[in-house]
Amino acid sequence: MKVVTFGEIMMRLNPVGYGRFLQADAWEGPYAGSEANVAVSLAQFGITAEYITKLPANELGDAALNSLRRFGVTVDRVLRGGARLGVYFLEKGAAQRGGKVIYDRAGSAIATAEREEFDWDALLAGADWFHLSGITPALSPALAGAALDAVKAAKAKGITVSIDLNYRSKLWSLDKAREVLGEILPYVDYCKDPFFYEDGSQDLAEIAARMMRDFSLRGVAVTMRTAHSANDHTFGARYYTPDGVFESRGYDMHVVDRVGGGDAFMAGWIYALLEGYDAGRAVEFATAAACLKHTIEGDFNLASVAEISTLAEGGRGGRVQR
Amino acid sequence: MKVVTFGEIMMRLNPVGYGRFLQADAWEGPYAGSEANVAVSLAQFGITAEYITKLPANELGDAALNSLRRFGVTVDRVLRGGARLGVYFLEKGAAQRGGKVIYDRAGSAIATAEREEFDWDALLAGADWFHLSGITPALSPALAGAALDAVKAAKAKGITVSIDLNYRSKLWSLDKAREVLGEILPYVDYCKDPFFYEDGSQDLAEIAARMMRDFSLRGVAVTMRTAHSANDHTFGARYYTPDGVFESRGYDMHVVDRVGGGDAFMAGWIYALLEGYDAGRAVEFATAAACLKHTIEGDFNLASVAEISTLAEGGRGGRVQR
Amino acid sequence: MKVVTFGEIMMRLNPVGYGRFLQADAWEGPYAGSEANVAVSLAQFGITAEYITKLPANELGDAALNSLRRFGVTVDRVLRGGARLGVYFLEKGAAQRGGKVIYDRAGSAIATAEREEFDWDALLAGADWFHLSGITPALSPALAGAALDAVKAAKAKGITVSIDLNYRSKLWSLDKAREVLGEILPYVDYCKDPFFYEDGSQDLAEIAARMMRDFSLRGVAVTMRTAHSANDHTFGARYYTPDGVFESRGYDMHVVDRVGGGDAFMAGWIYALLEGYDAGRAVEFATAAACLKHTIEGDFNLASVAEISTLAEGGRGGRVQR
Amino acid sequence: MKVVTFGEIMMRLNPVGYGRFLQADAWEGPYAGSEANVAVSLAQFGITAEYITKLPANELGDAALNSLRRFGVTVDRVLRGGARLGVYFLEKGAAQRGGKVIYDRAGSAIATAEREEFDWDALLAGADWFHLSGITPALSPALAGAALDAVKAAKAKGITVSIDLNYRSKLWSLDKAREVLGEILPYVDYCKDPFFYEDGSQDLAEIAARMMRDFSLRGVAVTMRTAHSANDHTFGARYYTPDGVFESRGYDMHVVDRVGGGDAFMAGWIYALLEGYDAGRAVEFATAAACLKHTIEGDFNLASVAEISTLAEGGRGGRVQR
Amino acid sequence: MKVVTFGEIMMRLNPVGYGRFLQADAWEGPYAGSEANVAVSLAQFGITAEYITKLPANELGDAALNSLRRFGVTVDRVLRGGARLGVYFLEKGAAQRGGKVIYDRAGSAIATAEREEFDWDALLAGADWFHLSGITPALSPALAGAALDAVKAAKAKGITVSIDLNYRSKLWSLDKAREVLGEILPYVDYCKDPFFYEDGSQDLAEIAARMMRDFSLRGVAVTMRTAHSANDHTFGARYYTPDGVFESRGYDMHVVDRVGGGDAFMAGWIYALLEGYDAGRAVEFATAAACLKHTIEGDFNLASVAEISTLAEGGRGGRVQR
Amino acid sequence: MKVVTFGEIMMRLNPVGYGRFLQADAWEGPYAGSEANVAVSLAQFGITAEYITKLPANELGDAALNSLRRFGVTVDRVLRGGARLGVYFLEKGAAQRGGKVIYDRAGSAIATAEREEFDWDALLAGADWFHLSGITPALSPALAGAALDAVKAAKAKGITVSIDLNYRSKLWSLDKAREVLGEILPYVDYCKDPFFYEDGSQDLAEIAARMMRDFSLRGVAVTMRTAHSANDHTFGARYYTPDGVFESRGYDMHVVDRVGGGDAFMAGWIYALLEGYDAGRAVEFATAAACLKHTIEGDFNLASVAEISTLAEGGRGGRVQR
Repeated sequence: MKVVTFGEIMMRLNPVGYGRFLQADAWEGPYAGSEANVAVSLAQFGITAEYITKLPANELGDAALNSLRRFGVTVDRVLRGGARLGVYFLEKGAAQRGGKVIYDRAGSAIATAEREEFDWDALLAGADWFHLSGITPALSPALAGAALDAVKAAKAKGITVSIDLNYRSKLWSLDKAREVLGEILPYVDYCKDPFFYEDGSQDLAEIAARMMRDFSLRGVAVTMRTAHSANDHTFGARYYTPDGVFESRGYDMHVVDRVGGGDAFMAGWIYALLEGYDAGRAVEFATAAACLKHTIEGDFNLASVAEISTLAEGGRGGRVQR
Repeated sequence: MKVVTFGEIMMRLNPVGYGRFLQADAWEGPYAGSEANVAVSLAQFGITAEYITKLPANELGDAALNSLRRFGVTVDRVLRGGARLGVYFLEKGAAQRGGKVIYDRAGSAIATAEREEFDWDALLAGADWFHLSGITPALSPALAGAALDAVKAAKAKGITVSIDLNYRSKLWSLDKAREVLGEILPYVDYCKDPFFYEDGSQDLAEIAARMMRDFSLRGVAVTMRTAHSANDHTFGARYYTPDGVFESRGYDMHVVDRVGGGDAFMAGWIYALLEGYDAGRAVEFATAAACLKHTIEGDFNLASVAEISTLAEGGRGGRVQR
Repeated sequence: MKVVTFGEIMMRLNPVGYGRFLQADAWEGPYAGSEANVAVSLAQFGITAEYITKLPANELGDAALNSLRRFGVTVDRVLRGGARLGVYFLEKGAAQRGGKVIYDRAGSAIATAEREEFDWDALLAGADWFHLSGITPALSPALAGAALDAVKAAKAKGITVSIDLNYRSKLWSLDKAREVLGEILPYVDYCKDPFFYEDGSQDLAEIAARMMRDFSLRGVAVTMRTAHSANDHTFGARYYTPDGVFESRGYDMHVVDRVGGGDAFMAGWIYALLEGYDAGRAVEFATAAACLKHTIEGDFNLASVAEISTLAEGGRGGRVQR
Repeated sequence: MKVVTFGEIMMRLNPVGYGRFLQADAWEGPYAGSEANVAVSLAQFGITAEYITKLPANELGDAALNSLRRFGVTVDRVLRGGARLGVYFLEKGAAQRGGKVIYDRAGSAIATAEREEFDWDALLAGADWFHLSGITPALSPALAGAALDAVKAAKAKGITVSIDLNYRSKLWSLDKAREVLGEILPYVDYCKDPFFYEDGSQDLAEIAARMMRDFSLRGVAVTMRTAHSANDHTFGARYYTPDGVFESRGYDMHVVDRVGGGDAFMAGWIYALLEGYDAGRAVEFATAAACLKHTIEGDFNLASVAEISTLAEGGRGGRVQR
Repeated sequence: MKVVTFGEIMMRLNPVGYGRFLQADAWEGPYAGSEANVAVSLAQFGITAEYITKLPANELGDAALNSLRRFGVTVDRVLRGGARLGVYFLEKGAAQRGGKVIYDRAGSAIATAEREEFDWDALLAGADWFHLSGITPALSPALAGAALDAVKAAKAKGITVSIDLNYRSKLWSLDKAREVLGEILPYVDYCKDPFFYEDGSQDLAEIAARMMRDFSLRGVAVTMRTAHSANDHTFGARYYTPDGVFESRGYDMHVVDRVGGGDAFMAGWIYALLEGYDAGRAVEFATAAACLKHTIEGDFNLASVAEISTLAEGGRGGRVQR
Repeated sequence: MKVVTFGEIMMRLNPVGYGRFLQADAWEGPYAGSEANVAVSLAQFGITAEYITKLPANELGDAALNSLRRFGVTVDRVLRGGARLGVYFLEKGAAQRGGKVIYDRAGSAIATAEREEFDWDALLAGADWFHLSGITPALSPALAGAALDAVKAAKAKGITVSIDLNYRSKLWSLDKAREVLGEILPYVDYCKDPFFYEDGSQDLAEIAARMMRDFSLRGVAVTMRTAHSANDHTFGARYYTPDGVFESRGYDMHVVDRVGGGDAFMAGWIYALLEGYDAGRAVEFATAAACLKHTIEGDFNLASVAEISTLAEGGRGGRVQR
């Protein structure tokens, strides 16, 4: 089974521990990005995961690629060129102090790529599944075009398509997002975290039902997080299907690193569907994957299928394995 | 608005993380001290904050000054000379294991300074507010004298005066403290954490009332902390005014670094009064400032007015800002 | 008072903080082992603690010895020689993600030592107490023999003997363990965490009673841990004596490092018995010792008698001592 | 005496030690820039040094300011706004492996500032000296305009002007540099590292003489570095004056951090001229300053006048002062 | 072009910086091994490099694989199973204090593998070149057999074969080495660092000539290192061919990390031969590769063809590239 | 063989690497002192080494003791009490920038001890050799008295006495030093680095001869260091005996950490004399010990007799031992 994901990978710079931006003399520098995170998760699950992006032809671009190769992601078709690697600065929150993110991604290699640079017929060769997030088409009109080309090509090849809508108000307006994503969604099978009719109705079930109908989706998943403090969250998910809604257990989590939790869910969901899990088991697996991600430093979910399954199937986590 | 504070800044040496003194092969070395912490907080709030102390004329003295300049405190009138910089060793507590402090401050430049070295007429030029803690007059008879000179000079110039009584039994006896501080308090406007009649009465309201009457204070603030464990505290405050008592929300805090919490409160209180907040809003702002301090490594409260206000005004903390 | 302990000390390699094995580019490398941990605890309590093992005659063996000498353990009779130092890799758990241990101890100097290398008459000279864990006889038939020789020699000299059964299924089968330990137990006075008739009866009181009767034990202790998550445990203990059962307070602990908790209990129990504490006070002291261990990094319990007593006697932990 | 400098300060990200970009999981993050480096040096010398730039109105901009305030530079007139802080990535060389720099400064707050944002009349109030590098006008046409405005305003106010031409081929062509700098140089008094007529003549003395004549300069300084390896450099300088050329001692240096060496020279030269040193002493002081910079981590030269003078006046460096 | 290498990869544990084993509380833990180092180098040069070994089926085995994938080595056919990962402890030397290595590799997964586990027909599919070191057959008789099978299979497929004899007296006697390697060498084309007739003749040229004749070799390379101190080495090489001997430049090196220098040479030599460099250019390229390795932390040579070529072709190294 | 040494152990605080005091946010914190360093060296050589001092009865005093126990020094008779532990701050030099030391030792437990606290009859029980430095009697008149008592007691017991005069102008005047040490020297057998008649004569041989005659010394050793830069020193020694002068080889050293070099020499000299080395071999051993110390971080010389002997006997250092 092969999953292709498409998006932007950035350098993430965060002060060590709970240091604030104002205190930082040194930065941890993992590489991360929504679709890259999904690819790494899937590779840990034993799925062939290929990542498509564009990176500058310098050592920082090389290092970003290496960080994916390290965890088993195929990066042979990544485009090289362009001016710079995107960066995001992350300050971890603690207790009543929330975390902070400063994005510095404008002008990155992928954000300045041309639509025509992506030959989807070749890039999707051999793929069973294609995934992207709503961040990718938000980066530029060219990327919105490339994303549309990609999902169309995927559909034509009979490849399953998923999207994590992941709306970011700093990148585009809600109206613009609806316009662009509205063109993409008809080619999508599975959609996470829909916001589409939010202003019209706050009822999640209704939104999900409407989206499934309007865009002929096969499934919609919504994750629900309550942040009691920066360190303590409750997390769960609902999976809407034509056969009904399936809700996962809720997890009370002590958070080590919260970034990438949604991507871990997405990867767990894709894995469960590829493996033919029924809907109830799928949403439990995906939620348990997201829960374990919160215990791991960095954006990548380095949890195995065995670890996730144990948690999903009701095992109490947190025991030492000797 | 300009606030002048006066006290001792020391090198704080703490093992990394939860390391014990017995395990430490390396030490983190920020500079810290009660009034310096107040000055740094105020500078973060946009107030002109000047710090008065005496530091040895060597690189460690320079570094202590630099740590204040870094965060915007004016240090142009700091005296230089004397034998050494005070040091305090801090072991962070965890769960049932309490924190530990070993002071090594005897013979420091400030503790051995002469009363006459401080020309308060010049040092207080342009000030709107003068603040010190009860630690400063405890350091030596000369400093007790200097502190008395300072508050008198402040009073004469119409400068508002505040004190954080901060009683330390390792530095002096309760009787001695009452004697020395009893001379200073008549020149004080606002007083934090009074202990004055403690043995006579455990009722805080009564103590506050008596102090306000005996020393003609304009306000008294008391912070209340319950340490459920070294990591989990509940924190709140009461502000006694001639118009009644105002109590803040209580915060259940997961503690990153508890040192400097009282100083953060003090700075928040001064800021609120300078800005003309009403008493209720003032105590909420000061308490929220103290709460956020507990989430920040080091003695300094590097929180902004915006962050504190959001928390004080009821926002649930701990959200990531993207 | 002098306590001799006998076992294997290993290099413990753990990624910094909550890092996973897959993320580790650097490792913290303390030295640790069940009976070594007990010896270090006892040395902190002011007891003369001697440790018997065999270590390779290279710098890693030297460093392991030094780590014990550093904390006051006598290591003058440690044998040197053999091929290698055992290693264990530890990944700390967090929240729902449990910790992991990979042992790499096969072929270590102690595991390949001959029974005859240990001259117990000399090794036990001057001892008041001898302690070992059930891990030591599990390492090899020769060590099982050496352990038997040791307890017999101790008995002959009137030395009190304790064992922490510490069953490890990776080292031997339950049947084998029962066979080997069944020969040792008749020479034992105090036994921790018995598992002996577990399959026959899950009732702890019954197991303890039966063991005390079958092996003429003077006391049996059982620790009880509930891991709500990798970070949050409840911990308590019961001490079965001929005079009845004594149960300690239960502690809700936020875990800094959970390894060595049982060894800290064992050392606390030995200390209490050497000091003549009554059974109720003994189990409170031992449990409080174990509780404090969970707040300290590494396997060693670097808590003092004063700190433990304060907690055991009902003091609320977690206060800063200034 | 007050010196104003004008330029761009960036976040410098370098792997720890001799790590390559490809190996970096963590980055040291000081803030640095040619004119900022000069300002920090001057502040160490006791000169009032003010720095003019534009920084984004976020915590990274705050932190950049703080890094200057820490070392005594006045930053009260720094403009705030714009999209991002410039970044440069630095890989330290070792032996036969040269160092590497990747600039990521496009679109920075200062590079996108408007010419009109800088009110030089106010910004230069009270200044005795104005300094900039050739990098600043290379950043944008607007900054080239601002730089021209600045030197004209300085000239009008009788302020001495210096420039470190610092030609960077990645920022502009030689022709463009000559055109823009050719407009600025008539307002300049002292010029470092001229490249102006390089293609016409490789003879330094001739270039210096021609520049002094063409642009009515009062002095030209040229630094000469021979890199035997990344760690071993020989460094010296020549100072061309109307009265003749003065050459410094040459230093055989073992390099700790080579970035900022030229800026340290520049600061030493300005200081020497402000203090009225004769030309020979000036070039020795400036060269010794640059030499000491190479022994200090980061871009900033944290050496004192006393340390530099001792070296410049022939003291053999490298002794421990007890 | 595809090169397959076969050997053991271990965890390398070295104290940070110049720390001694006796001082180490933390260890850096890269993964390394002679043939793995060659594979990483080749992957940096753009060659398809596949690595064959056996690794335990645990997270440490995963991490070792990941360290190779990170730098582009194909590890798809690595066998999994066996008891443990080999470890080697490295103490860096400094000046007059030499470095130290403690091997702990006995019983590793590869050393206990069976000859029959390696299906060379499949493992060598598509290969143009096969490389191993003399360490691999020294690990066990089974591996000696597997190595013999490998070179025979390679020969049968027309694959070029190289060996770095790399004699290690701790692993086997000279006589045993001669016996085992004497069976392998008839299938070898290129041989590095021969020691074969060392006792009969100290003349390198004679040994090389004799080996080329006795084993029908196409080329023999010898590296020559003079360690003036642990930090200062002179390094060069000679390449013996049927057409004569070619000697490289000698490099005076300041050593950052000396381990892996020979492997870097080997990789450079293989690359040069695959690219069809003439003998003189080949030995210069290989030697320059080895020289640059000494400037890079860890066993892996993360230098590019461009960097090596610049140095090999006479460029003076050590310049900063801006 | 047992050697007793007597002096002050301090906390040494140095910024990591080549960081300046002005840059330090973290400090490495080994414990060190001239006679403690000698004791640690001797313990590495297998000599029973006991250290006498007075340390505060807090965790810092415990940690200082532990640092000695770790390396095998006996500390059973160390006095506890007094106000504080002495501290010294060390900034490492690099190239032309010399190192810096700031002492903060006034008021330490040992410096404020009473002469009568030291019961030399008991403290010297079983000793073969007694060693102190000239720093100890400089700390206070009481310690000068205690030192005099010690050497007298040693003499009376037939214990060999050595002193490293180690004149420190910050502690006392040359005149005072001559007066106090003049009383001690008649009881001394071996004396290092005499400065006694320095102003009268700069000829070392003459000074040594005069001292040997005036104080009936059995031997005088002088170390000679030339610091070409902070990193590059030449080091050698002369040993004056009644039979003539013996001069060691000179070592060109690349310095990792220069502090403790003289103490390492002293320990090597004592060891050589205890072992009955002839004078020529003794000075070579002591000098080689000092040379190796310069390659080791911290004050302690963690080199073995075997390592030192290999270097002393002409082996070229710096080879890797595999």
